[in-house]
This record gives sequence, C-alpha cells and structure tokens, in this order.
Amino acid sequence: MQSNIEEKQTMKSFTPYTHTVSYYETDKMGVVHHSNYIRWFEDARLHFLECAGYPYTEMESDGIMIPVHSVTCSYKNAVRFGDTIKINLKIASFNGFRFKIEYTVTAADTDELRAVGSSEHFFTDMSLKPVRTEKKYPKIFEVFAEYIGKDL
Amino acid sequence: MQSNIEEKQTMKSFTPYTHTVSYYETDKMGVVHHSNYIRWFEDARLHFLECAGYPYTEMESDGIMIPVHSVTCSYKNAVRFGDTIKINLKIASFNGFRFKIEYTVTAADTDELRAVGSSEHFFTDMSLKPVRTEKKYPKIFEVFAEYIGKDL
Amino acid sequence: MQSNIEEKQTMKSFTPYTHTVSYYETDKMGVVHHSNYIRWFEDARLHFLECAGYPYTEMESDGIMIPVHSVTCSYKNAVRFGDTIKINLKIASFNGFRFKIEYTVTAADTDELRAVGSSEHFFTDMSLKPVRTEKKYPKIFEVFAEYIGKDL
Amino acid sequence: MQSNIEEKQTMKSFTPYTHTVSYYETDKMGVVHHSNYIRWFEDARLHFLECAGYPYTEMESDGIMIPVHSVTCSYKNAVRFGDTIKINLKIASFNGFRFKIEYTVTAADTDELRAVGSSEHFFTDMSLKPVRTEKKYPKIFEVFAEYIGKDL
Repeated sequence: MQSNIEEKQTMKSFTPYTHTVSYYETDKMGVVHHSNYIRWFEDARLHFLECAGYPYTEMESDGIMIPVHSVTCSYKNAVRFGDTIKINLKIASFNGFRFKIEYTVTAADTDELRAVGSSEHFFTDMSLKPVRTEKKYPKIFEVFAEYIGKDL
Repeated sequence: MQSNIEEKQTMKSFTPYTHTVSYYETDKMGVVHHSNYIRWFEDARLHFLECAGYPYTEMESDGIMIPVHSVTCSYKNAVRFGDTIKINLKIASFNGFRFKIEYTVTAADTDELRAVGSSEHFFTDMSLKPVRTEKKYPKIFEVFAEYIGKDL
Repeated sequence: MQSNIEEKQTMKSFTPYTHTVSYYETDKMGVVHHSNYIRWFEDARLHFLECAGYPYTEMESDGIMIPVHSVTCSYKNAVRFGDTIKINLKIASFNGFRFKIEYTVTAADTDELRAVGSSEHFFTDMSLKPVRTEKKYPKIFEVFAEYIGKDL
Repeated sequence: MQSNIEEKQTMKSFTPYTHTVSYYETDKMGVVHHSNYIRWFEDARLHFLECAGYPYTEMESDGIMIPVHSVTCSYKNAVRFGDTIKINLKIASFNGFRFKIEYTVTAADTDELRAVGSSEHFFTDMSLKPVRTEKKYPKIFEVFAEYIGKDL
C-alpha cells in the first residue's frame, strides 16, 4: 500500500558523509593532497547508497558495478590534518543507464565551503559491460529515481 | 649570446611521462582506481617542469608552490595492473598568475586513448598566498610562457 | 589537588579506533591492500593521543613529531570492502626518548582477529632531530608514562 | 637442450627496482610517508618476478596469487620528494608453500641506506586458499628455487 511505502521512506535517515582527515592524507604542502577529495566523493556516494537502503556490497552481489566515467573537483579552501569535513550530495541526473552526482564539501563544524565536485557513472555488469537498470534491476532504478535532484 | 640560448632551448627533450601500473593502484573492480589518474597528472606536470629545466624542487627552493585549483578527468578505457601508460600534456592557458594544463593518457604501446583531463593552478608562496610571477619570478614566467599551447 | 587530577584522568574515555573499509582501500585481489593496515596503525595511535588529552596537532604546535622508526604487521584474516575493524593498542615500551606501540586489529562486530602489528618511534623536533621529552616536554612524557603496558 | 636453457638463464638481467618519489607520496612531515615503503616492496618483488621471466600477470593467469602474510620495515634515513631510490632483494626462504623476501632500500645515486624490510607470503589460488607449488605449479617452484639466497 502506497501509504506504507511512504512511511518507510520517510524513516530513512540521510546523514551527510563525514570524515576526519588522516595524517597520511596530507602532503609536504602541509594540507590534504587534492587526490583524496576524489576518494572522499566515492566514500560519500557509497554512504548514500547505504543510507538509501541499498549498500554497494549488495549491488555487487546483484552483479552490478558503477565505474566512474568522469570526475571534477574545484578546491576552495585547504583542508588540514585533523579537520572533519562533511559531504552533501545530489543526484543531478539519472536515466537508468548513467547518472551524475554533485558533491559539496564543507567544514563539519563551521559549514565553510572546502570544495565542490561531481562524478558521472555508468551501470555495468561485473565484466564492465554497460547495463540498463529499469527492467532488469528495478531495485537499483527505484533507489536512484527516488532521489533525483534532492539535496542530501 | 642569444643564438646559443635559443639553440640550447631547442635541444630540450620533452619525453612524455610514462608509468607502469602498480598492483596497489588497482581496486576490487580489477582495474586502476580512478583517483590514481589525478596523481599521475601531478607526476606528469612535475615531469614537464623537469624537462623544461626548472624542477619543482627548485621552484619550492625559490619559495613558490603550484597548488591545484581544479581537476577534471574523463575515463575512456580501463587501465590494468602491469599496463604502461604515457601522458602527453599541453599548457592550455597561462597569464603569470594562474595556468591550466590538459592531459592525454594513452597506452604506451598502442597509443590507444585511456583518459583525458585537466588541472588549474595558482602560483603561491609557501604560506599558500597567491603570487604574480612576471616580475618577481621571471624564470617561472618564462618557462610557462615558452610552452603555451604546445603539444608536449 | 592531586585527587582532582586523578579523578579527571579516570574519566578519560579510551575508545578503540574504528574504521569502515573504503572501496579505494581494496586491490584486485578483492580484499584490503596490506599497506593500508600500516596507515590504520597511524590513525589508531593518533586517536590514542586524542583520547589521552594530547592531540597530535597540539604536539606539532609544541614542536614535536613522532616519525616512524620501524613497523611490523602480521595478517591473519582478510578484511574486505565495507567491513568495520577496530584497533586496540598498547604502549609496549617508553623511555622518554623512544617508544613502541603494539596493535591488534579485530572485526568490530565479531571480535575475530584480523591482524597484529607494532611500530617504534622517536620523538623529534620539526627538523627531525631526536629529542628527550622528560625535562623539556613533561606533558608528552606524562601522557606516555601514564599508559605504559595498559591495554587500550 | 640443457646447455641452452642454462645459457638463457644466465642471460636474465636482474636490475634492482628503482623509483623516483612522487609528490603525493610525501606527508606534512615533508618526507615520504612510511606506508609507501611497503608499497615499494611490492613493486620490487613484482619487478623481480618479471626479471625472472615469470611476470605476476602470468602467475595470476595460471591461477596463483601471493598474498602478504607479514611485513616489516626499519627506516634508516628519510626519503624526500624527487629522490630516486633502488631496492635490492633476496629470497631469504622458500619451501614451495611459503616464502620470505628481504629488501634493502638505498639512494640510487649514492648507495646510502634508506631502509631495510621483509615480507612473507603464501601461494594461494584465486579464492585465497593456500597451494603447494612443487608438483602442481613446477614453473613457479623453479623460479623461486633458482634464486634462493641470491642477492638480486
């Protein structure tokens, strides 16, 4: 029944991904090496899938992977060892075949902007062959369709 | 004498940066983790500086750093453990204050495309404060100005 | 007053460092790359310093670093993407000049053993010159002396 | 003919693994992060397998992996961005079932010592189940048996 589904969905709790910077993530410039933001985006989108009730481990068990087609990141203010950042994200587009996520990295304590970025992905099978999800993988389709354009 | 200097510059040999993929650069998808391309771009631009006769260690000794303002990468074909890739680059823009580099990653043996990307940078002093190079750091200015738009 | 100090120290809460495995920490063998345990040991000892009331950021502000003199790790059971591990540690030795920490990595949910390891460190100033802490850095000396041999 | 095989083996050229330090391998201490040596050991042993005529990609194709059972590293002198190091190694023990490799890291230009370390490994199948190589994988057995105790 529709009302039950809505109730269940309302109960999902989306917390932004948070991360406290490790010493090994810094470089000799004294701040976080820029490549780590790309890794944090991955952490954040897999955290989203878990919050959405469909962890990536389950997606892999179902035979689907989401390799990265492109990434972008604009660095606004340096992040340092010991800082805690949080990442809010939004599914900017999704058509059952590919999707794009946008990320906003802020200081967890002050909400000051640290970086913004994006990533595009295809759905593929375990041999990296593209897959359409709408009919064959309705659970995946629904998870993404449900959250398009929402600020999470 | 001017003619000698020109001759010397002509003799600089630009070899594209090459890299053989380490096992630790792969992930459980069986291919190179996408964050490593961002690291290879860094290797490639520091390799360029060395080829251009102005290694980054010298730039740091001169008090200048080039933190990353933005990065992009589009992944075209997976790179695997043991593969050797090469990276050609081009200084797409430079105004003495900031610059942009574009990268092309290909298979070293077949020249097949693997990825394209870019990075934007500011020149800063050691406290990450932006710096204009034209008058204060003519050596840096000349290195970048000389190679704008050239396919290296 | 001595009694107040003791009371405050008793109230320090030592929680073992916990970590949920990121996708980028895996390799094509499908499990966590072994080098990451060495990084987790670092996370765990800096977490200890924070629990002990003397965060590493403060130690660095005081002009002291603790570079690694040696590491060991014995891998018992593979750790996989999505697993949460916890690390208990013990200061095995400390003489004001150098110290050794032992680590035990277990599955956070089942307490099953994943790995054991150790690291040895010197105290140094910011130019990596060894330093004796007892007289010049009594706060550091006390933090380490207080916890020698305790299972944390 | 036996003599030809011997001749061919004599002609194998063992070059020590060399590596020029990337910027992203440093940390805010200004030197290479200690975890990277563990990664270089891996690079060095896979380089050995290639020199020995049996690349790891071929070993994996044959269904065999060599996960790490333990590692150790003692750090002697810091390695910095731009430095080139070389790694000599020795198969310290091998019984067809497990093996141990010892590594010596030196500055490529001066031969000054930077670190020593070791790693122990099992041979396993692709599901990480231990495997004895002597009868089932004679090629692997021979490669390791041939080089026991030799300084490479």
